[in-house]
Amino acid sequence: MENKVEPRTLPGFMELLPNEQILFNKMKKAIQESYEQFGFLPLDTPIIEDSKVLLAKAGGETEKQIYRFTKGDSDLSLRFDLTVPLAKYVAEYYDKLSFPFKRYQIGKVYRGEKAQRGRYREFYQCDVDIIGNGELNILNDAEVPSIIYNTFKKLGFDEFTICINNRKILNGLFESLELKNDATSILRIIDKIDKIGNEAVKEELKEISISDEKIETVMKFIKISGTTDEKLEQLEELNIKNETFEEGLNELKEVVKYIRVFKVPDDNFCIDLTIARGLDYYTGTVYETFLNKYRKLGSVCSGGRYDNLAEFYTDKKLPGVGISIGLSRLFFQLMDNGIINADNEAISDVLIISMTDDYDMCAQVATSLREAGINTQINIENQKIKNKFKYADRLNVKNVIIIGEDEIKNNTVTLKNMISGEQNSYSLEEAIKVLKK
Amino acid sequence: MENKVEPRTLPGFMELLPNEQILFNKMKKAIQESYEQFGFLPLDTPIIEDSKVLLAKAGGETEKQIYRFTKGDSDLSLRFDLTVPLAKYVAEYYDKLSFPFKRYQIGKVYRGEKAQRGRYREFYQCDVDIIGNGELNILNDAEVPSIIYNTFKKLGFDEFTICINNRKILNGLFESLELKNDATSILRIIDKIDKIGNEAVKEELKEISISDEKIETVMKFIKISGTTDEKLEQLEELNIKNETFEEGLNELKEVVKYIRVFKVPDDNFCIDLTIARGLDYYTGTVYETFLNKYRKLGSVCSGGRYDNLAEFYTDKKLPGVGISIGLSRLFFQLMDNGIINADNEAISDVLIISMTDDYDMCAQVATSLREAGINTQINIENQKIKNKFKYADRLNVKNVIIIGEDEIKNNTVTLKNMISGEQNSYSLEEAIKVLKK
Repeated sequence: MENKVEPRTLPGFMELLPNEQILFNKMKKAIQESYEQFGFLPLDTPIIEDSKVLLAKAGGETEKQIYRFTKGDSDLSLRFDLTVPLAKYVAEYYDKLSFPFKRYQIGKVYRGEKAQRGRYREFYQCDVDIIGNGELNILNDAEVPSIIYNTFKKLGFDEFTICINNRKILNGLFESLELKNDATSILRIIDKIDKIGNEAVKEELKEISISDEKIETVMKFIKISGTTDEKLEQLEELNIKNETFEEGLNELKEVVKYIRVFKVPDDNFCIDLTIARGLDYYTGTVYETFLNKYRKLGSVCSGGRYDNLAEFYTDKKLPGVGISIGLSRLFFQLMDNGIINADNEAISDVLIISMTDDYDMCAQVATSLREAGINTQINIENQKIKNKFKYADRLNVKNVIIIGEDEIKNNTVTLKNMISGEQNSYSLEEAIKVLKK
Repeated sequence: MENKVEPRTLPGFMELLPNEQILFNKMKKAIQESYEQFGFLPLDTPIIEDSKVLLAKAGGETEKQIYRFTKGDSDLSLRFDLTVPLAKYVAEYYDKLSFPFKRYQIGKVYRGEKAQRGRYREFYQCDVDIIGNGELNILNDAEVPSIIYNTFKKLGFDEFTICINNRKILNGLFESLELKNDATSILRIIDKIDKIGNEAVKEELKEISISDEKIETVMKFIKISGTTDEKLEQLEELNIKNETFEEGLNELKEVVKYIRVFKVPDDNFCIDLTIARGLDYYTGTVYETFLNKYRKLGSVCSGGRYDNLAEFYTDKKLPGVGISIGLSRLFFQLMDNGIINADNEAISDVLIISMTDDYDMCAQVATSLREAGINTQINIENQKIKNKFKYADRLNVKNVIIIGEDEIKNNTVTLKNMISGEQNSYSLEEAIKVLKK
C-alpha cells in the first residue's frame, strides 16, 4: 500500500465487530434499564476535566495512569472513574439537586495501565450511587443488592452471589483487639485469603508482629461460616464489646433483613466477612458479586458505603452508597470464557431482497415494515441473487422478504425464515403479523 | 472553603442537570432507534486514536483544533469526527465486514474551538453511513432522506425540510461554462447566498473575474424555483450538454422518485441547488435539513455522497453516503429557543412515601412495581412528610404511592396523581393496572 497509513487501533482499546457490538449494547441497555427501574437519574459528565479538579484527591498509582495533557493554557485530564466526576457534580450543582440524589452514569473512563489481555485503557463503567445530604438511611444499603440482583437477572444470569460485609465489623474487631493501627496492613493481608490460603495469611500476620493469640481471634472471626443467619449468630456470639463492631453488626442485620424484603433470594447473597475493598474509601457496607461457576473471574460488580463523597470540593457532608460494573472487562471475560456468544446477533429483523431491477415495491414494503416497528434493511445493490442471500446470512437476519415479478404482479411478499428454511407467500399485512410474533 | 478545590466544569463542555439529561437521552434514544429501524449496525470506536492514523487526512483549521498529546512514547489524538474512525475501521476490518456496510455511531467528538455560547468542545455526533465495496447504488441516496424523515418525526418534529442537491449538477454547470478551475471559489461564494443575498454574491463573483455573461447563467441557475418537479423541469430546460451535469440530474431525478416511494411527503423535502457543502469531500447527492420555523438555526442534519471513504488507508474503493446530526448543539439550540423544555422530565413513574418507620411494605411494593416494569423510587429517608412530597415535586414524578398505618393494616396502597391531585385507595394489583395505563 503506497503512501497509505496502516489503519490500526491502539493496543488496550476495545473495538468490536458489529455482531459483538450489538451484544455489548444489549448488555449496556439492560444495565441502564435496570438502573432506571430503581429511579436513578442519568448523568453524562465530560470525559475531559480540569486536572486540578479531577486530581484533587488522586495520588500514587492512579495518578501515574492518568491521561493528562495541556491544550493552550489548560491542564487537562481524562476521567479515570465516574466517582470523582460525581463528587465534582454534586458539589458544583448542590443547590439544584434534590437529596437523596440517585444518579447512574454509564460511560468510558481512561487508565494508562500496562497493556495486557483483557485489561483496557479505555473502558466502560456503569455506576449507580445514592448520595444523602448530611445523612443517608441504612435501608439504601439494602436496596443496592436488590439493584445488583435485578441487573444481573436482566443480563441473563441466575447463578451469582452478592457478597456483603460491613467495614465497621472489621474495624470494631481491630479496635477491640487494640490492633487499630495495624488495621490497614491486616486488611490487606486478609484480602488475599482466597488467593494464598489460611496458613499463608497467618504467616504474613506474624511477620507484621501480631501476637499468636490475636491472630487466633482474627482467624476465628474469618472462619465464621454457615448460612447467613448462622453467620450473624456467630458474630453475636463473639460478644465483642465495641461500639463500632456493634454498629456494624446492627447495620449488617438491618441490611440482611431488608435484602429479603426486597425479595433477593438467599441463594443470591451471602455474608462474606473477608471482603475488605478499597481500604480508605469505604466506611460501612461493602459488596462484591461473583458468578458462581466462574468465581475466578473475580468480582463482576462491587461497591459500598462511604462517609463523605465530596470532601475535596465542599464542607457539606455527603454520605453515599453505590456500585460499579466494569462492563468492558466483564464483556471480554464472558466472551473469552464462552459464557456469552455474539455469533447470531442481528440488528435487522428482516432483509428485503429484490429479484428484479424494480425497487418500488421493496421501498414501499420497507417503509411499511419500519412503520410497524420492524427493523428492516433492503438489499438494493446489483448483486447476484446468491450473493444477496449470502449477505442475509452474514447479517444473521432471521427473515428474508423476497420480491420478484410474481410478488409485484400479485401484490404479495414471499417471507423466508432463514433458520427453519420455511418459505410462504403472504399479503403485506399478514407478513407484518408473522414478523411481529 | 478552606483547602477545597472549586468544583468547576471546563468551559465549552456540556454538563446537564438531571431533568435536562433525561430529555437529552430520550432524543439520543429516538435517533438510535430510528437508525436501527433502517438496519444500521452499531459501532463504538475508541475516543483516543494514534495521531498518525487519525490525522492521515486532516490539516489546516481542523488540525489546530485537535486534542493531541503524548502518553509514554505514543502520539495520541482525540477523534474530531466519526467519519475518520469509520474509514479506519472499514479499512482495518475490511475482510470481516459485509458490504454494503451500514453502520451508525453515536458518540462524543472533540474540537478545541473558541469557546462561545452553544459551541461545544466535546459534543455528540449521531452518524449513519452506508459504505459500498467498489460501487453503491444511487437508491441508497434516496433512502437517506427517508432516514432523516423518520428520525425527525421520532424526535417529535413535523415541520422540517430536507434540502437535496447533487454536486455533479454544479460541477457540470461549471465545466460547461469553462469555469471548472474557479469552481471551488464560486461554490464558496454561492454557499453564502442565504447570508449575504444575491447582489453581494454577484459582486463577489465579479471580484474573482467571472464575466458578466457567465455570472448571469450562474444566477439564472441559482434562481431556479417552484415545486420539486418544476425545478427538475427547469434543470432539463437549461439544456446543458455536459456529461457530469446530465449524470447529476439523472441521479437527482432518481433520488426524488424514490424519496416519494419511501413515502417522504413532498412537504418535507425539496431540491435546493444552492447547497454545496464540504467542498472537496462530497461528490454527488448532498443533504441539509432545516426546521421550517427556525431556519436561522442552520442545518440540523447534513451529509451526502462521497466517492472514496478510506483512500488514506487502503487502495480499495469504498464509496459511501451518510448523514450526521450534531446532537449536543441541536439540543442546546432547541432548549435555548424554547422549542423543547425539560421542566417535567422524570425517570421514576412513581415515588413511594412511607408515613411510618416501618418500611417492609414499601420495599415489597417497590419490588412488585419494578417487576411489573414500572420505574419506582422509594423515599426511605427520615424526613418530614411535607419534605417527602416536596421531594416528589422536585423529581417531577407523576404518581406517589403513600403507605401508612391504614395501608399496612388493610394491605392496600394510596395512589396519588400528582398532576390532578386525585387520590385513591387500591390493592397493589389494581394500582399496578392504573399505573400501567
